[in-house]
Order: sequence, then structure tokens, then C-alpha cells
Amino acid sequence: MIGIFDSGLGGLTAVEELRKAMPEADFVYFGDTARIPYGTRTVETIRAYALQDCRFLMSQGVTSILIACGTVSTNALDVIRSTFPVPVVGVVEGAAKKAAEIASKGKGRVLVLGTPATVKSGAFEKELRKNGCDGVMSIACPMFVPLAENGYTTVKHIAAVEIAREYLAPAVDFCPDAVILGCTHYPLLSEVISHFLPDSVLVSSGAEAVAELKKSLTSRGALCGGGKGKYYVSDGLEGFAESARRFLQTPVTDVTAIDINSY
Amino acid sequence: MIGIFDSGLGGLTAVEELRKAMPEADFVYFGDTARIPYGTRTVETIRAYALQDCRFLMSQGVTSILIACGTVSTNALDVIRSTFPVPVVGVVEGAAKKAAEIASKGKGRVLVLGTPATVKSGAFEKELRKNGCDGVMSIACPMFVPLAENGYTTVKHIAAVEIAREYLAPAVDFCPDAVILGCTHYPLLSEVISHFLPDSVLVSSGAEAVAELKKSLTSRGALCGGGKGKYYVSDGLEGFAESARRFLQTPVTDVTAIDINSY
Repeated sequence: MIGIFDSGLGGLTAVEELRKAMPEADFVYFGDTARIPYGTRTVETIRAYALQDCRFLMSQGVTSILIACGTVSTNALDVIRSTFPVPVVGVVEGAAKKAAEIASKGKGRVLVLGTPATVKSGAFEKELRKNGCDGVMSIACPMFVPLAENGYTTVKHIAAVEIAREYLAPAVDFCPDAVILGCTHYPLLSEVISHFLPDSVLVSSGAEAVAELKKSLTSRGALCGGGKGKYYVSDGLEGFAESARRFLQTPVTDVTAIDINSY
Repeated sequence: MIGIFDSGLGGLTAVEELRKAMPEADFVYFGDTARIPYGTRTVETIRAYALQDCRFLMSQGVTSILIACGTVSTNALDVIRSTFPVPVVGVVEGAAKKAAEIASKGKGRVLVLGTPATVKSGAFEKELRKNGCDGVMSIACPMFVPLAENGYTTVKHIAAVEIAREYLAPAVDFCPDAVILGCTHYPLLSEVISHFLPDSVLVSSGAEAVAELKKSLTSRGALCGGGKGKYYVSDGLEGFAESARRFLQTPVTDVTAIDINSY
């Protein structure tokens, strides 16, 4: 069984990809809705929260962990991997590989969009360099999570367009071949981001992580199950089910609230 | 010594008022920056967080508590008052009294702006009715906290103006005599709010709470001290000091980080 977690709803964009890529996989999703957002907190707090999230998933018997959160993947992957005896996939490696591949066929330029904590970590840049890509620009987009969580996601939403205009201004001349959506909330803002960077390929870090996890499970013959999904949140059962409709094509029904501080 | 707390930085607008109104008062401020925002969480979580916040303040020897947070004042005032043996002032009573007074000299109309949790509680409406005011409209403004925390606070910020235009549209025809800023972040957005409601008096719930606390302390002869302030946060020391500059006229120096989950 796969364990997936995020600070809140963003990770559901990865669940959507997982259901498409591995319809047979059973999974447990945890959204830390009592402590969202993670991306504006310090690395110490992000690590402490992430370890609790993983301890909860392990208590549910998961045999692999997908970190469906850019902030955790870039700030706590090492400590999670060294703490838990199961394969752990974050959103950095797959997306960096894919973006570097796209850039190698173009001008060699990649734009990384992430939370302040993700950009501060430098994790995507490091991984892009490992993949031979040096032309990297990174931009922190702290307002993108509240915009996505509150449904301001299309070019009809002037507030979303104006904030994206401000964030993406330095990237227009840079004209990247690929844009890494380094936070799993950001695919919801694809339309707005592409409005300013129409010639760049958007790389969903969550989707690439799912592809990487699928490869890993398949190679170990561990991809099996009945396609069952269970959802856990640390706050707001009703609000979660309602908001989840914006993130998933199919409705979320089996949702349970837990006290994350006891893990 | 006065204990003041908020989910994050918003309560600093009340600290500013407190320093003006009671320059001699010693105080301890706690900002729960590891768990901000509160206004989009459930009442159970808000109450649990608020009790921890107050337990921390009590451990610092405070002899009165000012809840400088609209969400906590409207969802947890009763449980805080019944748990701790010190006078507790929230932001509802003073603001409702002031707004009702203004409305009684006008068309009798008050607009309440608050977080989703505050509006859902109905606490301001109840208190306004107690003060003889029945013409109440309430609007939840979930994006105002991220806008304020990220510095989008003037009419030059198109995103702030557009979001305010959307939220305040139903209130323009209502044309309230007074607008209760029911969240301590909202005074930062005064310019943007007044842009759409130029004829309404803005009532800062934090400022009214400070006035109420001053009356209570003065009547008990308990207003004394050397004007010292200490600041505690649950995350992000440096970020706090930096952001505090947007909320306070004088810089914040004495800041300490604590683990709020141990209280």
C-alpha cells in the first residue's frame, strides 16, 4: 500500500495522477489541514511536521511513501529516507530529470516555481545541475497556495493574473524551455502560468513523482492491489471533501479525521 | 503583566494600540506562526490551539489575557474564560458596542468582516443585537489574511483591490454606517476597504479590545509596569522580526521561539 501526504489539498493533484498511472494501487492519503501551509515555515518546523506525517502513514501499514509536497520534498527528504525503512519518493528527482531533458533540446533554460521554503532549499537547482542543466532561474510564489486553495485559478480571476504577472515578470525575458511546478498546488494554476509563459512546457512535479514511483514499484513486482483509496486529514472533514472536488475528478468519500500531534 | 496572542502577526496591530493606550504596561506577546492561519480551521482545532496558547502565556506569569485574534475571540472566548483564573478580553464586545453606537446615529447598519470561522460563529451579530443593532451584514474574507501577511495592502496592489471588490460587492448598496474589522489583520487593509466603502467608519476590533482592557485594568488599579514587551513565536524568528516591521512602528527585538505543542 502506498502512503501519500501533503500539507493539505495540493497532494490530491498527485493522487489524480496516481489513479491514472496505477489504477490498481491501494493508497492512504494524509492531508495536514490543521497545519497547512508548510511553504512559509522554517526548515526545522517542516521536518518536524513531515516526520509526524510519515509516522502516521507507517502506522497505517504503508510499504512506500510518496511525498506529494514540494516543500517537504526539498527540505526533509533526507531525514525521512533515513528514518523510515520503506522506499520514499519526493517530487524533485523526476521533475528535474524531465525538465533537464526538455531544456537539453532547447535553450537549456529551466524555471523553478516553488514555495519560499522550496526555493530557499536550492534542491531543484542542485538536481537540475546533476542532470546537466545549469540555466536555472527560481522564483518563490507564496501567494499561489492561498490562491489555489481559494479557487482563484483561471485567467478570469484578475487577482491570480496580477499576482502571477508580478512573480513571473523576471521569467518572461528568460523564456524558459521548461517550468517546474515545484509545489503540488501549482498545476491548478497552469492556465494562469501559461498565460505569461506560452512557449514553455509546464512540468508537474507531482506527476513526475508518480511516474518514478510506478517504475520503482513495477521493478520490484510490488504494484498490486484493488485500487482502494483512504483519506485522512488533521482538520475539517467536510471542508476537505468539498474542496477535494476542485482537485479530483472523482469525489472523495472515505475521509477520517486524526490528531496528528499524537504521532 | 498582560498576555496577548494571535495566530501570527495580526495581533501586532493590537500591540501597537496597546503601546499607545497603555505605554506603562508590561506585556508578553505570542504569535502562533507555526500554525497560522486559524480562520479557515474548524472550531475544535481553534479551541485546542487557543488553549495551548493561553497555557503558554499563563506559564509566563500573565495576570490578564487579551485575545488579539478575531477567530479565537469568536470561537473560544467561553472556554478560555472558564479555564483560566484571570480577566480575559476578546475583540468582540468592544467593537460591537462601538459599531452599534455609530449605527444608532445613522441608518442602523453594521457590516462585519471576518475570517470564515468568525462569520460562521455569528458572535459579532449576537453582540450587536445585544447592543440594539439589528441591521447587520457579515462577509467572510478568507484571502485578506494572506494578502496582509504578504504585503498586498494598498490600492496600488491590484490583487488586493480585485479581491476586496469581490468580497465587498454586496455591501456597497447596504452602505453600512460602520464596518467592524473583525480580524486583527484587517486594519492593514483599511485603505483598500475604504476605497469601496468611503462613507463607512472602520472599527478596529483590536483597538476597541485594548480600550476595554485599559478600562478594566484601571478600575482594578492594575495598570502598572515599565512598558516592557517580550515576543514569543512558535516558528520563524527572523521572518517574524522582519514582517513585524510592517505591523509595528517600532522594531521588535526581544523575540524567542517556543514549541507550542509542549503546552
